[in-house]
Amino acid sequence: METGFSVVLPPWMQGFLRSGKGPFSSPEEKMRWVIDLSRLNVEYKTGGPFAAAVFEQNSGRLVAAGVNLVLVSGLSIAHAEITAISLAQKILSEHRLSSRSGGQYELYSSCQPCAMCLGAIPWSGISVLVCAAREEDARRAGFDEGDKPSDWCAGLEKRGIRVHLDLLRQEAAAVIQQYAAEGGILY
Amino acid sequence: METGFSVVLPPWMQGFLRSGKGPFSSPEEKMRWVIDLSRLNVEYKTGGPFAAAVFEQNSGRLVAAGVNLVLVSGLSIAHAEITAISLAQKILSEHRLSSRSGGQYELYSSCQPCAMCLGAIPWSGISVLVCAAREEDARRAGFDEGDKPSDWCAGLEKRGIRVHLDLLRQEAAAVIQQYAAEGGILY
Repeated sequence: METGFSVVLPPWMQGFLRSGKGPFSSPEEKMRWVIDLSRLNVEYKTGGPFAAAVFEQNSGRLVAAGVNLVLVSGLSIAHAEITAISLAQKILSEHRLSSRSGGQYELYSSCQPCAMCLGAIPWSGISVLVCAAREEDARRAGFDEGDKPSDWCAGLEKRGIRVHLDLLRQEAAAVIQQYAAEGGILY
Repeated sequence: METGFSVVLPPWMQGFLRSGKGPFSSPEEKMRWVIDLSRLNVEYKTGGPFAAAVFEQNSGRLVAAGVNLVLVSGLSIAHAEITAISLAQKILSEHRLSSRSGGQYELYSSCQPCAMCLGAIPWSGISVLVCAAREEDARRAGFDEGDKPSDWCAGLEKRGIRVHLDLLRQEAAAVIQQYAAEGGILY
């Protein structure tokens, strides 16, 4: 019987991360980098058109990045946000980001989170969520976002997690639409 | 930089799983076994008072089990349900349970799922969710369950996932209360 499970970044992404990773000076620069990752994930055929990254807020330093790896990992939890958050926790050795280091961490996502990833955010220790595409952009391409509370942004804000939406929305939505137009697998 | 993350069952649990695992003939028998796991997780000090398991519906065969491993894994996603679901997907080699094998799978949880685990259920391929303790039992002990849609049971049923609540609720709630009374870490 299996006694554990793992999610591992694909080789192309390990190379991409080594090649250059900030520090990033503006929100747009961070998000453009994340959207590039979402596009590369499709081009390398390692998963759906979604990417996310955790940045240290003050320095603009990249901590960890993730892409949708459901198909290559064989795990339905391996969404971009879950992958980025979990890697950041491993790298910083804290299961709740900022609880030990005192740093503040931002999660940039190429698309608004699905119900699972939304639920994971408060447990992660993330202080800021920044999203590009809207959930309706994902839905329009055929992706299921799950059942979220209708006022989910307010729910995060109430917990002290700031939310910024629609940063470079069109660029991110275009990657999702392109994936769907080419008949990419929906799951 | 870390390029992956893993969740591994603690050694006591690997032994426990080898020692005997069904087939289980009744829902009560399955849930009692899951509640035993939640108690053992506290006794062995490997995490919070929560356990879950995936069973093959027709045969009553155990597929995989998980406990809350947030502290020992250093990952905020390592809840019992996420662990059990992910292990089942590894064991059956399908990222959406029942999509390939055609079998129907049940998730038994010692407590109603938090917002993250609830969001993970529709992506998992689980057909039935059975819960023991209520979320208010976890809240009363100090655990945060997150923000869920108020009609989350109806939401799952609408997706074709049947939900059964309160099976052996008191036994499971007692394990949670005991953990809190002894000053167990809340996270």
